[in-house]
Amino acid sequence: MEMIGIIEKKRDGKKLQSSDIEYFIKGYTKGDIPDYQASAFLMACYIRGLDREETFLLTEIMRDTGKKADLSSIEGIKVDKHSTGGVGDKTTLITGPLAASLGVPVAKMSGRSLGFTGGTVDKMESIPGMKVSLKEEDFIRQVNEKGIAVIGQTPDIAPADKLIYSLRDVTGTVDNASLITASIMSKKLALGSDAILLDVKCGSGAFMQDYDDACDLAKMMVYIGNAAGKRTVAAVTDMDQPLGHAIGNSIEVIEAIEVLKGEGPEDITELSVTLAGLMAYMGEKAPSPEEGKLLAKEKLYDGKGLEKFRQFVEAQGGNPEIIENYMLFPQAKHSIDILSDNNGYIVGIDADKTGEASRHTGAGREVKGQKIDLSAGIYLHKKVGDQVKEGDILATLQGNSKKKLLVSAGICKEAFHMAGSRPDKELLIRSIIGL
Amino acid sequence: MEMIGIIEKKRDGKKLQSSDIEYFIKGYTKGDIPDYQASAFLMACYIRGLDREETFLLTEIMRDTGKKADLSSIEGIKVDKHSTGGVGDKTTLITGPLAASLGVPVAKMSGRSLGFTGGTVDKMESIPGMKVSLKEEDFIRQVNEKGIAVIGQTPDIAPADKLIYSLRDVTGTVDNASLITASIMSKKLALGSDAILLDVKCGSGAFMQDYDDACDLAKMMVYIGNAAGKRTVAAVTDMDQPLGHAIGNSIEVIEAIEVLKGEGPEDITELSVTLAGLMAYMGEKAPSPEEGKLLAKEKLYDGKGLEKFRQFVEAQGGNPEIIENYMLFPQAKHSIDILSDNNGYIVGIDADKTGEASRHTGAGREVKGQKIDLSAGIYLHKKVGDQVKEGDILATLQGNSKKKLLVSAGICKEAFHMAGSRPDKELLIRSIIGL
Repeated sequence: MEMIGIIEKKRDGKKLQSSDIEYFIKGYTKGDIPDYQASAFLMACYIRGLDREETFLLTEIMRDTGKKADLSSIEGIKVDKHSTGGVGDKTTLITGPLAASLGVPVAKMSGRSLGFTGGTVDKMESIPGMKVSLKEEDFIRQVNEKGIAVIGQTPDIAPADKLIYSLRDVTGTVDNASLITASIMSKKLALGSDAILLDVKCGSGAFMQDYDDACDLAKMMVYIGNAAGKRTVAAVTDMDQPLGHAIGNSIEVIEAIEVLKGEGPEDITELSVTLAGLMAYMGEKAPSPEEGKLLAKEKLYDGKGLEKFRQFVEAQGGNPEIIENYMLFPQAKHSIDILSDNNGYIVGIDADKTGEASRHTGAGREVKGQKIDLSAGIYLHKKVGDQVKEGDILATLQGNSKKKLLVSAGICKEAFHMAGSRPDKELLIRSIIGL
Repeated sequence: MEMIGIIEKKRDGKKLQSSDIEYFIKGYTKGDIPDYQASAFLMACYIRGLDREETFLLTEIMRDTGKKADLSSIEGIKVDKHSTGGVGDKTTLITGPLAASLGVPVAKMSGRSLGFTGGTVDKMESIPGMKVSLKEEDFIRQVNEKGIAVIGQTPDIAPADKLIYSLRDVTGTVDNASLITASIMSKKLALGSDAILLDVKCGSGAFMQDYDDACDLAKMMVYIGNAAGKRTVAAVTDMDQPLGHAIGNSIEVIEAIEVLKGEGPEDITELSVTLAGLMAYMGEKAPSPEEGKLLAKEKLYDGKGLEKFRQFVEAQGGNPEIIENYMLFPQAKHSIDILSDNNGYIVGIDADKTGEASRHTGAGREVKGQKIDLSAGIYLHKKVGDQVKEGDILATLQGNSKKKLLVSAGICKEAFHMAGSRPDKELLIRSIIGL
């Protein structure tokens, strides 16, 4: 009966009390509240909205369903960096080493994503020998000694989120700023960092397609992070087309290495040094975000970032020879080229469709726990603004199942949009909130 | 995936197509769509609303999940009467015989309610020997010969409604005009009558507490009934205080007999003759509702209504001696009186609280299939407007469990509200829609 009253309260647009939210989160996590009541409640929250106070309470109560990581024995200001998720987003593998080379301790726990490609830890696993779980003391020692460690997030972090996210995913209640905020921030707040840098994606491949919605989400997350006592900053960045040229796992690690060699695509390079600069500023290793960015660029072009990446791979058991020899990565048996049927300019590459195509190559998951084909993925030879002639290769799909690649090719081709004239250039970094 | 798209459509306030509604109703009835998706969808429907066209489609698609009763071999215009449910509402047992005595064939299928008291068929079962299920041919023959038969509704009538109502009941999605309309009308439209008279209750003991909400519900139901090809009229009537003095099962049958003897309480008598008059008018046995009402009053005071009741009881195997000897009804072992603590006037008797108290005596059900104590219930000695002295008996509770009666007494006492001066008289029949 009590849960029905709470559902009705939010249904009628009234404000929830701390005790209401606690009753729901604790009851649902324990299994006392059935899915059908939880989904009706979440739909009411989605449509009626939660204000900042309700979102803050929801986030804290979800955080408190699990353990809190204690990183206090790591020296320095620990800045966590989190992306709301996009296609081709390999920035952690670049900004992590860059920030570490600037003296910001990077002690990162990443999730395995369900979706277009694997998460950061899946990508790391494409490096032969690389471990993605470490004992707590080894994790902390590595950060203190090498400046960087990245491991998989343990399941005891905000377990309520996992349950609630699975339900939201199948009940049309995903893209709501408050629910996304509580989901992401409940975990981030439990992870023990001193400050949080968020990369809030905006566009066809993101939670929020609309710029204003993405800004609202960014503002909500910044508010909640600060209210919970952690310095929080958010960059709102474009995810209309994929980031860089590579989408997949090993193929993205290779692109990250290329960026650290100073030879990567412009967009992902620009985003990575911007974020690393922000991390340096938040970690008090640079007097301003702008100077942080200049310092990060220096580390990129003088090879210190790549050197830090090498130390990071070696420290976690990975084979550092992959940096020079990409043939050491898992190799795909098959590949298919997608050719252009027309002459003209690329005016759009739908991030959501390329993501979907990537998942079909085997690079992503459809259900939890599914094994990923680490060699699979898509390489985009052309990006928005490029001129294309009939017969030019737009993209190459690779993987171990020819059948999957054929399905993927059909979807991938639909992602490309052409026109007769060059499109205006869109901003990659659209705004920074919370500075 | 398809269901998620349908949920998102309504979540975003867009209009559902016939194919969307059909996908949901058929899928949910078959068990292909899980409860958690159905409840999220119903919450979106509740908050965003369904327009008349969507409600009509929902009603027809729900109706078509089951059988349609064929009453074509019954002569005359068959008028069904349905109440949205209230406390102390025994009108079917009075209007049925009155309408039949005016020549309107009464071929009624009633549900067993889940709530404050039993439904009409539960009440009928308190008459020793009374059958509430008949073979189809016997049911039809009885209506043709005696003018009236009332039986329990078979489970093959609109089975989708049963499933959806159970879910709405526990997910805070009950009191929405479109969902109530689809629930009630999907069954009424399947039951084979030519016309439908609705008694839409309004007040603390009803779905709709607010008069305007009740009118909206009435208008929606009248629109849907007519759109589906059945003449439909709705009376919006008061359910702020219980109807009559008796709440329960046998105790309500006794009060119905008192009314048919011309000795019943004013409110229930007035409502019964008004509804019987409307049935006579809709069944073309009276030139206007007003003349129908006068004719119904005649049948009440000349004993023809009571005579029809006797025939009805006898035809279905019940002992007609109960009409003269109330001791033949199931008798309760225990009773408790509730006394007034003050002098003054009764200004309110909460229908919902008395209903709740009645359920606690054993007269209603908490879960489906629960056995009812047919002897249990509440007799209200005082009603709104009555003057009361300290120590006067306000109500008598009866039943077979002393423990239950003690719980019930506490709730029942809270239902009474007193003041120093006589309250204004409220209208019982507030409006009639669809004439």
